[in-house]
Amino acid sequence: MRTIHVIGIGAGDPDQLTLQAVRALRDTDVFFVLDKGEVKSDLTQVRRDMLTTHVPEGTYRVVEARDPERDRTAGDSAYSPAVGDWRSARADIYERLIAEELGEAETGAFLVWGDPALYDSTIGILEEVRQRGTVDFAYDVVPGISSVSALVARHRTGLNRVARPVQITTGRRLAEGFPPGVDDVVVMLDAHQAFRRYADEDMDIYWGAYIGTPDEILVAGPLAEAAPRIERLRAEARERKGWIMDTYLLRRNPERP
Amino acid sequence: MRTIHVIGIGAGDPDQLTLQAVRALRDTDVFFVLDKGEVKSDLTQVRRDMLTTHVPEGTYRVVEARDPERDRTAGDSAYSPAVGDWRSARADIYERLIAEELGEAETGAFLVWGDPALYDSTIGILEEVRQRGTVDFAYDVVPGISSVSALVARHRTGLNRVARPVQITTGRRLAEGFPPGVDDVVVMLDAHQAFRRYADEDMDIYWGAYIGTPDEILVAGPLAEAAPRIERLRAEARERKGWIMDTYLLRRNPERP
Ligand SMILES: C[S@@+](CC[C@H](N)C(=O)[O-])C[C@H]1O[C@@H](n2cnc3c(N)ncnc32)[C@H](O)[C@@H]1O
Ligand SMILES: C[S@@+](CC[C@H](N)C(=O)[O-])C[C@H]1O[C@@H](n2cnc3c(N)ncnc32)[C@H](O)[C@@H]1O
Repeated sequence: MRTIHVIGIGAGDPDQLTLQAVRALRDTDVFFVLDKGEVKSDLTQVRRDMLTTHVPEGTYRVVEARDPERDRTAGDSAYSPAVGDWRSARADIYERLIAEELGEAETGAFLVWGDPALYDSTIGILEEVRQRGTVDFAYDVVPGISSVSALVARHRTGLNRVARPVQITTGRRLAEGFPPGVDDVVVMLDAHQAFRRYADEDMDIYWGAYIGTPDEILVAGPLAEAAPRIERLRAEARERKGWIMDTYLLRRNPERP
Repeated sequence: MRTIHVIGIGAGDPDQLTLQAVRALRDTDVFFVLDKGEVKSDLTQVRRDMLTTHVPEGTYRVVEARDPERDRTAGDSAYSPAVGDWRSARADIYERLIAEELGEAETGAFLVWGDPALYDSTIGILEEVRQRGTVDFAYDVVPGISSVSALVARHRTGLNRVARPVQITTGRRLAEGFPPGVDDVVVMLDAHQAFRRYADEDMDIYWGAYIGTPDEILVAGPLAEAAPRIERLRAEARERKGWIMDTYLLRRNPERP
């Protein structure tokens, strides 16, 4: 039977690969690379370098496909349906890749940024393909270091405080209000710097962009002071590189020494 | 100057070590092993095996110390103070270990279970030692695969649903009520199977014990059906091994196909 590995590759630093991930890479015949357009081609390059470093040449094939664009013009309320259409469009592609590019006894792999468990659609899409029942395959998931773990490691802080909860959410949600019942919140997928809304409150921020890469930028401190600095650094970096990925932890009512 | 690595070693599977962690292990002169008593000696053995596998013999020393017992007899409201005392007692030990067992130009390491960012006190204790100012050292943190990532990878599911948040919390908190504002909740440190309280609600559970080890047990399904099975398996396993570590994801109002 066809087998597929969904491999978490860490969020930027190639040394964040686990030994299990390296083993899965070496076990793979066909790597599926979904290109998300030119701005993300740096990220595609990271994946290609990993293969060159860890897998003997000539033991694998790389099959590239163009990722369908998500309809980002749809309004907020249309967010979920647009995601649904996009997921189906991707499922069409994955289905075709598995059926046409992977031999019946071969092993394929998708290399997923960070941890496949966080804001990634690969597992959901593979489940959709399986439910269609048109192509038979088994798959497993190799966990990866998420940008969340990488962020707090670089800042040498924890996610939760002693015996307390932590929430991981999106910029879109944070813009609607600070999540109830938690004081420690990690924010991903924030295109609009939603943290600015909270600059009047007693919060610390631990922010990072391009974490684990040579372009890494880190800023930490009381939000009121850090926010303008982050805004400036973020705008400059985005201008310079053409794209940005950043994540941050907001810590409300921090204990100050 | 003395340097210390706080190294996340994954939550059970030795292949969950990252390449960065292996590098940090090899770079270390002195490993500090805090023994938490006999029931956890299996976990101490995992660490020793990692050293044997990845670090050339004769290049390092292992220094063992007994972890002070946390006062678990203190009532619920006293939880935080008890933790505070315990942290200070540990800081005393860490301070002594660093000052007396680590040469001025040497590198030491603490091997932390899972990811040092989740419900682990090592970073907080090192910060306390630094604030005391009695011994000078630099330290860094190597992120690890948490039991949370390992859990959902084994169940081949995500932590969050599309564009939605996820909360990570403790059994103690879950026993007080389902966290507001989220439908996906990961529960750690649950000695009392707090999930039982929600067996009447429309929830799925993804549960795992000893994840990543040869003793791994996984159960997933609608909570009402899964809860009694988990209770039974958990009690049997705990009896058999003398201790248990388990983690689970509760997913409220799951989309059923
Ligand atoms: C589609 S999500 C994928 C997350 C990924 N699965 C993970 O575990 O990190 C993309 C978001 O992850 C965060 N991210 C990923 N890599 C990052 C990095 N190296 N530095 C900062 N943020 C990063 C950003 O918040 C970005 O908007
Ligand atoms: C003190 S916390 C440490 C968590 C660790 N830093 C991590 O990242 O997984 C201990 C809790 O982690 C969870 N845990 C750790 N390892 C586990 C494993 N292999 N299987 C299931 N749960 C585990 C359990 O909920 C346990 O009560």
